[in-house]
This record gives sequence, structure tokens and C-alpha cells, in this order.
Amino acid sequence: MTGNTESAYRELLGKYKDAMVLSTAQGVLHWDMETMMPPKAVEQRSEQLALMSRLHHKLSTDPQIQTFLTSIQTSPQIQSMGEVEKRNLYLIGKSYREQAALPEKLVGELAMQEAITVNAWKRAKAKKDFALYKADLKKLFELSKQSAEILMKVKETKTPYEALIDNFEPKMSAEAISRTFDELLGGLKPLIAKIEACQTKPSPQVTTQPVPIESQRVIAQLITQTLGYDTASTMACGRVDETEHPFTSGCYDDVRITTHYHLNNYTSSIFSVLHETGHAIYEHNISPEWKYQPVGAPCSYGIHESQSRFYENIVGRSREFWMGFLPQVKVAAPVLAGVGLDEFVRAVNRVERSKIRIEADEVTYSIHIIIRFELERDLFEGKIGIDELPSVWNQKYAGYLGVEVKDDAEGVMQDTHWASGLYGYFPSYALGNIYDGQIVAAINKALPDWRSQLSRGNLQNINAWLKDNIHSRGDLHNPEELIKRATGTALNAKAFIAYLNEKYGGLYGF
Amino acid sequence: MTGNTESAYRELLGKYKDAMVLSTAQGVLHWDMETMMPPKAVEQRSEQLALMSRLHHKLSTDPQIQTFLTSIQTSPQIQSMGEVEKRNLYLIGKSYREQAALPEKLVGELAMQEAITVNAWKRAKAKKDFALYKADLKKLFELSKQSAEILMKVKETKTPYEALIDNFEPKMSAEAISRTFDELLGGLKPLIAKIEACQTKPSPQVTTQPVPIESQRVIAQLITQTLGYDTASTMACGRVDETEHPFTSGCYDDVRITTHYHLNNYTSSIFSVLHETGHAIYEHNISPEWKYQPVGAPCSYGIHESQSRFYENIVGRSREFWMGFLPQVKVAAPVLAGVGLDEFVRAVNRVERSKIRIEADEVTYSIHIIIRFELERDLFEGKIGIDELPSVWNQKYAGYLGVEVKDDAEGVMQDTHWASGLYGYFPSYALGNIYDGQIVAAINKALPDWRSQLSRGNLQNINAWLKDNIHSRGDLHNPEELIKRATGTALNAKAFIAYLNEKYGGLYGF
Repeated sequence: MTGNTESAYRELLGKYKDAMVLSTAQGVLHWDMETMMPPKAVEQRSEQLALMSRLHHKLSTDPQIQTFLTSIQTSPQIQSMGEVEKRNLYLIGKSYREQAALPEKLVGELAMQEAITVNAWKRAKAKKDFALYKADLKKLFELSKQSAEILMKVKETKTPYEALIDNFEPKMSAEAISRTFDELLGGLKPLIAKIEACQTKPSPQVTTQPVPIESQRVIAQLITQTLGYDTASTMACGRVDETEHPFTSGCYDDVRITTHYHLNNYTSSIFSVLHETGHAIYEHNISPEWKYQPVGAPCSYGIHESQSRFYENIVGRSREFWMGFLPQVKVAAPVLAGVGLDEFVRAVNRVERSKIRIEADEVTYSIHIIIRFELERDLFEGKIGIDELPSVWNQKYAGYLGVEVKDDAEGVMQDTHWASGLYGYFPSYALGNIYDGQIVAAINKALPDWRSQLSRGNLQNINAWLKDNIHSRGDLHNPEELIKRATGTALNAKAFIAYLNEKYGGLYGF
Repeated sequence: MTGNTESAYRELLGKYKDAMVLSTAQGVLHWDMETMMPPKAVEQRSEQLALMSRLHHKLSTDPQIQTFLTSIQTSPQIQSMGEVEKRNLYLIGKSYREQAALPEKLVGELAMQEAITVNAWKRAKAKKDFALYKADLKKLFELSKQSAEILMKVKETKTPYEALIDNFEPKMSAEAISRTFDELLGGLKPLIAKIEACQTKPSPQVTTQPVPIESQRVIAQLITQTLGYDTASTMACGRVDETEHPFTSGCYDDVRITTHYHLNNYTSSIFSVLHETGHAIYEHNISPEWKYQPVGAPCSYGIHESQSRFYENIVGRSREFWMGFLPQVKVAAPVLAGVGLDEFVRAVNRVERSKIRIEADEVTYSIHIIIRFELERDLFEGKIGIDELPSVWNQKYAGYLGVEVKDDAEGVMQDTHWASGLYGYFPSYALGNIYDGQIVAAINKALPDWRSQLSRGNLQNINAWLKDNIHSRGDLHNPEELIKRATGTALNAKAFIAYLNEKYGGLYGF
């Protein structure tokens, strides 16, 4: 690139950087709100966040962006641009068109109705009464549908629902998700039957023994250190704090995680730290030369989730990991001295049909997601209405998981997503598992020795594989393409089913 | 107000609010940088702060501000406006004219040269070699002078230096400061002589005994609670964290302080928490109905300092305060069980001629400031040059304080202010003391019983007096006017000298 085209490209990147830097600042304010902020400051914080959202919207819908884009796209130099430059232009154009297409009035109404509906949801969930928030949920759903119909045209998706999926899993078709989820369900059903047929069920006892919070804090730091996420040294890029619901916040050289410590449930914080550390490592490993560029961002929510679940489940629930790590945990928490390796590994790999998604195990988790995906899809196709949500929810839980939902608090109201206007988000959770199946198959080939390395506490090669093939590549490709390049296989659930069968066959002895 | 004038006024307040809310968000990022941020995130944070500064400058120099101001000022309705509305318009106009008058190029050069000079100062101070940063200091001083010359015209001050003072102490003349400082010096000299003539010197021993950091943390929370700054409850508006240099950050319902804990110097954190709590209470007590308006801000740096020093010195170094508080401290730190009240009060009120400003006592502190004021004034009048600073500094320390400065690290390079471009700031510190003298005289009249209330641990009436007469009034008046209204007396150092004579006469027995 030379002359005007190059300067237009630089201007575009500069504008993108401003918007991105501002959103990282918003991220720090969100993190502070959840972890450090004095309680009385809530109103002040909402003023700050509202202003910053307005400023962010202004930066990212600046009409100059279209002017620069057009000037580059009509220049003959576009042909000679590299892969990164082209992807940057594509991503800037996509985001600009989408944001500019949504009328400011609708965006404002959505934000307002989201806040109202989340509040109504909290009250309704506490009273176990779906009727208390049904009307607000309907309003929010109608507004989301309006927004999805506008986005469908800009994103050129087949359906409005697919346009929402695209917000989380770019260019993933609802049809591909349906097909893969059906394949997954087909594999999970017989596996669950086999597990349930086993006589010897793992005992959860070893995970319920009280462990002092101070020891749990030391274990959390041990985990981040072992996985290679620096939260302690003088060059640390992260930190671990406490919140009711664990989360990861930030990017590049400032990525922070949170966890919760329960005296009588120490494995809860262990697995949440493993999970959030996976998210954190991904954000930290994105190529530094792409900092503040569109390509210098995570690929998708599903890919993000594949990384958190890789460290939580594939690594963190493996026998090999605990061979090396359990002795260290015992030093930090001498109260666990009597815990046996096999007993522990079996306990943290219990499989149970359950009603609550966030408490579900590695095997049944995806079924919770498939139920939500089917409901969302049918809602947006008009096959079911908001009124019917609770009854259809309960039917599906009875049919797919064989559990009886007693009330809507443990049923359709358990998650905040729909009340927060997050439609099209759920599929990404299960896609994360599916991607992991493909990733673990690829690692089996590339590093046949990886499990024995892991058992010696050596994660170096696994980390390097994930960094090279997933993390560092940022948003250079859409998720399907990224996974295909990384694993050599197209999106499919077979590998994940095979991984589960091998692992649980070993654990349950079938 | 009605119609166009009212809507112009509302628009103006809206624009002011945006800029102020953004600066409170910047404040949170600064606080996070000093307290929580992972070390590797420095570069990212500077990107965020630089962007937010640019956005803030854009908001506060929006040409629409002048349009609205003109439309209001030319409307006949200006006559019927209330005191608050008129002050808001005055402050918006003042700030807009000042910011708009400074060329963007100069502002950029100043920011750049400040960063360079602070770095050079750090290196030079470490090597105790003024010559290492003299050239950068000269550049910064010249740029500051340029900026002062521009501001002098807008602010209509007599000299460029007075324009800089106005940044910290609005409408305070250099002449008034000179006169009051001379008066102060005239009172301090004989007082110091009397103190030094005393045979029995207080022993510092009681303040050097090791106190566990955990106990010091409990004491810090006890102090904030006792003074009425809520850092612990579910309605807390503040918190206490640790940094090398204590500071206060934030406003209204989110005001945070920091302190440092030294095992062998527990009174250091006690007095820094008392000091910062004074700043915090001031910010928190500004009238909530003026939130995000120009009047809803602190009055001046000197008034701010008067409040921190009131709680640190007038209250916090009084015998009466420790009558109620020392027993509580002993519960938190049983290691101090043997400390006697008189011994403690005498130890924390030691008077010593010293070389380091921030370690100076209540009596000699102002002399350190007077030396800096005279040097700044003479620098801007061209009576001395940057080259002569070290030698003139040392002469003044010998003359005014009778101490011999051994090197420039403990001399002219001890403070960061001049290296950071903060000229005109120092006078505010001593003005804080002088205001406190007038305030304590007024409280003596209004609440003749206040010291005996204090000895019973009751700060309610003192707090209420400060809130009503100083804090809640925000920036409704310039500092001289505020102090006159609060105390009934014009700016003068007599009251502060009288307060010191009475207190130290009692302590030293003269």
C-alpha cells in the first residue's frame, strides 16, 4: 500500500484502536464494579458506563469510517493487500455496517428493556413465578426480533435467529449447529446409558470436606502458576479476586479472573480457576503485533469457551493432571492429606442427569445447551411463544435428561441470558465442547506424548500448541475456518464423543 | 429561567456533566493503576488514560459551550438567575476560556515534557545530581511560563505566576499570599525558639515500637469509622488500600483512600489515614443536589488541604482525641498496652527543624512551603534562574530553618511537583494550615464545648460544622470568600499562630 490508500488504512486502524481502547477502559470499570467498588457508588458507576457507551458508539459509527473504507475498496491497491490487512478491513466494515444499521432509538429501547427485564427476572426467580416477568420478557423478545431482522439483512443470514448467532459465532449457520448438535445428542445418549448402567458410582465425599479459604486461595495461585498465567510475579499480567460468579475480564497484558471460595466445596473454586485461567491465557496470547487491531481479538465465544473448557475439563479433569498436581494441593491444604488420586479423579468426574446447567458435568452439559438452542430457534421461527416457554422447557428436560423440573426457578428462569437480551449466545457453550473434541484429537496426533508430559506437570507443549494454533491467531479467521486449520477436520461432534467414550470408559470400566 | 435560556442552561450543564463523569472514570483508572493493576499492564493503561484525556479535552472545549454561554449572557433573564446558576455559568465560562486559550500544540508539548522531566528527576534524585535533570527542568519551566503568560491574559491576573496559583487557589493574589506568609513566618520564628528553649524534649520511642501490619489495618478501619467515613458497611462510600504514597481519589459516593503500613512506624499510617480521611469526607459531603455541576466540586486545593489537616492535626494530634481513641488502638494492637496518653501525645507532637517537607511537623511545615513559594515567585519574575535553584534553596533552608542541606536529593529535588510541571501548587499547602487556624477559632466560638466532646469520642458536632460551613458549599465561592463566610474573618495567619502557641505552650509548658 502507498499514498492515500495507506493513509486511509492507518486512519481506519486509528479509529478502531480508539474504540477498542475505550472498551478496555469500560472493562476495567466493570471489573472494579464487581470486585472493589464501594456499594454506595452504584449510581455513579452507571453514569460512567452509560457515558462511555455513548462515546464508544460515537467512535465506532463515525461516518468517516465509511469514507475511508470506500476509498480503500475502490483503490486498485486492494488487490495487493495481505491477509491481515484484508481481514482488518473486512472486520471493520462488518462491525460498522451492523452498528450503523441499528437505529439509535432501537438500541436505546433495547438497553432500557434489558435492564428492566433483568430486574423483573431477579424478582420472578426469587418468587419462582415466571408470570411475574413474562410481559417484560415478551417486550424484550420483540425488540430483539426487530434488531435481528435488521441485522439479518446486513449480515446476509438465512434467518433472524442466525443473525443473532453470528454476534457470538460469526458465519456459523443454524443448520450446521442443528446438524452437529443432533450428532452430539446421538452420541451422548448411549454414553450416558452406559455410565448409568455401571454398578460402582463415584462418591462425592472427597469433595465436600471443609478446606480453609486461605488454603483455597493458595491453591488458586498454584493453578494459575502451573498453567502459565502469571498472577503473582513483578511482571504479572493478571490477578485473582473474589466474586459470587467467577468471570474473566480484560485482554493482552491486563487479564483478570475471579473465583469464589466455599468452605465446604473446595473443588468449586479449583475448577472455576482452571476455567477462567483458560479464558485468560487465550486473551493474553493473542499476537502482540496485532494489538488494538480487529484481528487482534478473540475469534468467537465458542472458541473462547473451548479454551476455558480445555483447561477445566480436558486438562483439569484428567487423571494425568492430578498425578502431578494433587501432591501440591496437599501441601497447600494439609487437611486433604488423606485424599487418594483415583478417588479424587472419579469424584470430580461424576456424571449425573441434572436440572441446573452451570452445575452440570462434562458429559451432560451439552444437552442443557441443546435444549436452549432448540427453544431459541423455535421462538424466533414462531413455532412457540413466550407463554409456552416453561412447559416446553419442562417437556424437553423430561425427554432429553429424564429429570422433572419442579418450578420455573430451577427451570426456564435459571439463566440470566434471555432476560439480558442474549439470544443466540447459548450454542457457543456447546460448540466450545465440540471444538475441544477436535482439538484434543489434533493434539493426540501432534503430541502423542502429551498426557505423560502432563502427568509430570509439564504443560509447555500443550500450551505452545494452543498458542500457535488457536490463541495467537486472534480473529484472523471465522471459527469454523480456524478449527479446520488448527485440527485438519471440519466441524463435527465425533471427536468429542470419542474423547468422552474413551475417558469415561476408563473411569467407569466399560 | 424559561424557554431558550433555560434549555441553553440545561445543555451547558449536560455538557459539563459529561466531562466531569468522564474525569471520574479516569480517576478510577488512576486509582486502579496505583492499587490493583497487574504490573505488565502499564502500557495498556497509558493508552487508556491518553485516549480519555483526548476525549475529555474534546468535551470540555466543544465550541457549542461558547454558543450557549453567549445566548444566556445576552438574555435579559440572566438578571433573575439565582446564586447557584450564576456561579455555574461563571465556572463553566472560566474553565472554557482557559482551556480554549491554550494552543493544543503547547498542551501536548507540556504533557510530553512533564513525562520526560519526571523521569529525568527520578534518575537525578537517585544519583543525587541536579545537573542530570537541569536541562529538562529548564525546558519544562519555559513551557510552563508560556502557558502562564497566556493564562494571565484570560484570568486577568497581575503576573504569570499568579495565573498558575489561580489554577489551585482561584482568585488568590500572590500579594495576599506574600503578606500572609510573612505574618506566619513572623509568628513561627519566636514559637520555634520558645519550643527549642525547653529542657524536656519529647521522646519518639513510643512511636517506633513494632506493631503487626494486621493490627495497623484494623486501626485504619477504626479511624475511618470514628471520623464518620464509611469504608466497611454495606452502604460504604469508600475503601482503604495500600500504596507507597498515600492518596485520596474520587468524589461523592465513591471516595477511596490509601495508606502505607510500616512495621516499625505505626503512627505513619495512623496520621496518613487521618489526613486522607479528611480529604475523603470533604469530597463525600459536597451537596448531593449539585452532583456533576460546577458548584458541586471542592473549592480549592488549599481548602481541601485545610480539611485533611484539620482531621490529621487539629483533631488527630490533639490530646482530647487520643483520650477516647488510644484505648481502642490498644485493643486492636495489644502490643501497645503499655503506652501512656501523655507520652503518646507528646511523641506525635515533636517539633524539629528538618530538611524534608513531607516529614515535617505541624509547626515547621509551613516554613518548607514558604521557601518553595518564594523560589517559585522569584523564578517567574526572573530574579533567579533554574541554575541557581539548588544554591538559593540551600541558603533559604539555612536561613529559615537553620539546617544544612547535604545534597540536592534531600534539597531541591525532594519533591516531584516542579518536575511534574506543578508550579503555583505549593502555596495551597500552607494556606490549608492558615485556613485551619481561622476555622478552629470559629469552632471555638460556635462549639465552645467541642474539645470535651472530642475527648468523649464524639465528633458529631465538629463534623456537622465542617459539613455545613465548608464541605457542603462545594465551589459556590472562591476560597477567600468561603473562609470569610465560614469563619467571619478575612484571610490572616494570626489565628493559626494563636492556635499553635496555645497548643505547644501546653505541651512544652511555656
